[in-house]
Amino acid sequence: MQQELNKFMDDQKTAVEQELEHQLRELDIPERLKASMLYSVEAGGKRLRPVLLMAAYHAYDNDTDVALTPAVALEMIHTYSLIHDDLPAMDDDDLRRGQPTNHKVYDEATAILAGDALLTYSFELISSDPQLSANQKVQIVKSLSEVSGPKGMVAGQALDMKAEQREITLEELETIHTLKTGELLRFAVGTGAYLGGASTEQIAHLENFAYYLGLIFQVQDDVLDVTGDPDKLGKPVGSDEANDKNTYPKLLGLEGAIEKKSSYVQRAKEALRKAGAETSYLALLTDYFSARDY
Amino acid sequence: MQQELNKFMDDQKTAVEQELEHQLRELDIPERLKASMLYSVEAGGKRLRPVLLMAAYHAYDNDTDVALTPAVALEMIHTYSLIHDDLPAMDDDDLRRGQPTNHKVYDEATAILAGDALLTYSFELISSDPQLSANQKVQIVKSLSEVSGPKGMVAGQALDMKAEQREITLEELETIHTLKTGELLRFAVGTGAYLGGASTEQIAHLENFAYYLGLIFQVQDDVLDVTGDPDKLGKPVGSDEANDKNTYPKLLGLEGAIEKKSSYVQRAKEALRKAGAETSYLALLTDYFSARDY
Repeated sequence: MQQELNKFMDDQKTAVEQELEHQLRELDIPERLKASMLYSVEAGGKRLRPVLLMAAYHAYDNDTDVALTPAVALEMIHTYSLIHDDLPAMDDDDLRRGQPTNHKVYDEATAILAGDALLTYSFELISSDPQLSANQKVQIVKSLSEVSGPKGMVAGQALDMKAEQREITLEELETIHTLKTGELLRFAVGTGAYLGGASTEQIAHLENFAYYLGLIFQVQDDVLDVTGDPDKLGKPVGSDEANDKNTYPKLLGLEGAIEKKSSYVQRAKEALRKAGAETSYLALLTDYFSARDY
Repeated sequence: MQQELNKFMDDQKTAVEQELEHQLRELDIPERLKASMLYSVEAGGKRLRPVLLMAAYHAYDNDTDVALTPAVALEMIHTYSLIHDDLPAMDDDDLRRGQPTNHKVYDEATAILAGDALLTYSFELISSDPQLSANQKVQIVKSLSEVSGPKGMVAGQALDMKAEQREITLEELETIHTLKTGELLRFAVGTGAYLGGASTEQIAHLENFAYYLGLIFQVQDDVLDVTGDPDKLGKPVGSDEANDKNTYPKLLGLEGAIEKKSSYVQRAKEALRKAGAETSYLALLTDYFSARDY
């Protein structure tokens, strides 16, 4: 099963990366802007969001090609958010995944514009995709703008900036994670299932699943910053504690955080069962994200 | 006629401003983010883009209400571009329309997020407008993302940054203006006419009209920086020359620039005639923008 999941993830990751590169390389735009967009899009990463979208589609239908453009658009939005979050005025990060951040390689102005361009281009891609019907395009543009805009991801980043250097409650922490990460995961799973032909009720259960998956992902992120292997993670550990960041281990202790994660895994699987997707890749992905060591 | 145009412009400006405020005030989002978005949206200005969209609609149909959401979305995109263009990493402007720029009142991080939020929210507004059909929504999202993204406005800003501190040709200058301003005007006029029921041929002529209107607007901007009255303009004059900016008067001389403008006015009116819109407000708007002294 694990092998099958790995193959599915690799295949989808490759398809998404090829399409991402294709859609950007064919743009006839100022060179430096294009290079800056490509730099961050090609910086790699797990491609968790698009792969989840594909896996949710695959739980109901097999021809994942139809879901490719929305998956690519989602990854562009995720990439734009990383570029802007890394800016000196925001988190002021020099490195991401071991590589210099966009504004360190190019410059701040170009990084801001590359982010703006990726965000805008994602809506162009969806609205001009020949494989989607007009109703599907409208539905996807609506959901994607909702989860990534002022009510979603942007709100999460605004709250995160405000939460720095003060102690927050577990509830506030979960709100920030849900807005910054969970909402995009909800879009991924909901859109994949929608395109795959899932019922409204099934989609609602899957969105509930995505909510817990987002929390699992975040708890594990926090746990790995305490217990992880820097070589496998590709980044130093202990930075959360050094920066006095609000994390699950800080608020609940390490054991408390791991227990919390287990309860989230249970709830995620229960939601999957209700969505009729308990035997899909989504179930394997849940275990995978809960147990990952990188 | 002039009085009638003024009334139309005032009415449309009021309708757009009320709707802009309504759509932002009802958002349940972090307070500082919302205040920052509202600050720039309420900073006023001529509302040229939405009024043009309404005028183009009105050239073919009377119920301008249908065009209100796309007009508001367009103004949000314009506002986001001003916020990001003013940032320290970009044009580093402390004042706009005599008021402190967004990042001076709030902070850079909030200004970046407010811009991101306005951009994203504009697509949400269009895709969830109950007055537009699915096909209309798709068409408008597609056009708006094209003109404002990496092939349009963002490319213009990227080229503009690159063009600073070096001499450029008239052709390069026009490319930058077309991308930074003209493309949004083309969207305004094209979308208004499309929603009003204009034919494909009429829309093509109107988009040609918008191209010249954008150039007229820019030449007049440059001319006013030489000959304008600072009190009427609400900003000091002579700054283009002081900053060694590439302008029409610099490249063609003052008289040459004014002659150029006249030839653009002629071509704009010719395009309007071909679109069957020579008696619409669009014709009056052309004279108005060519002769404006503020």
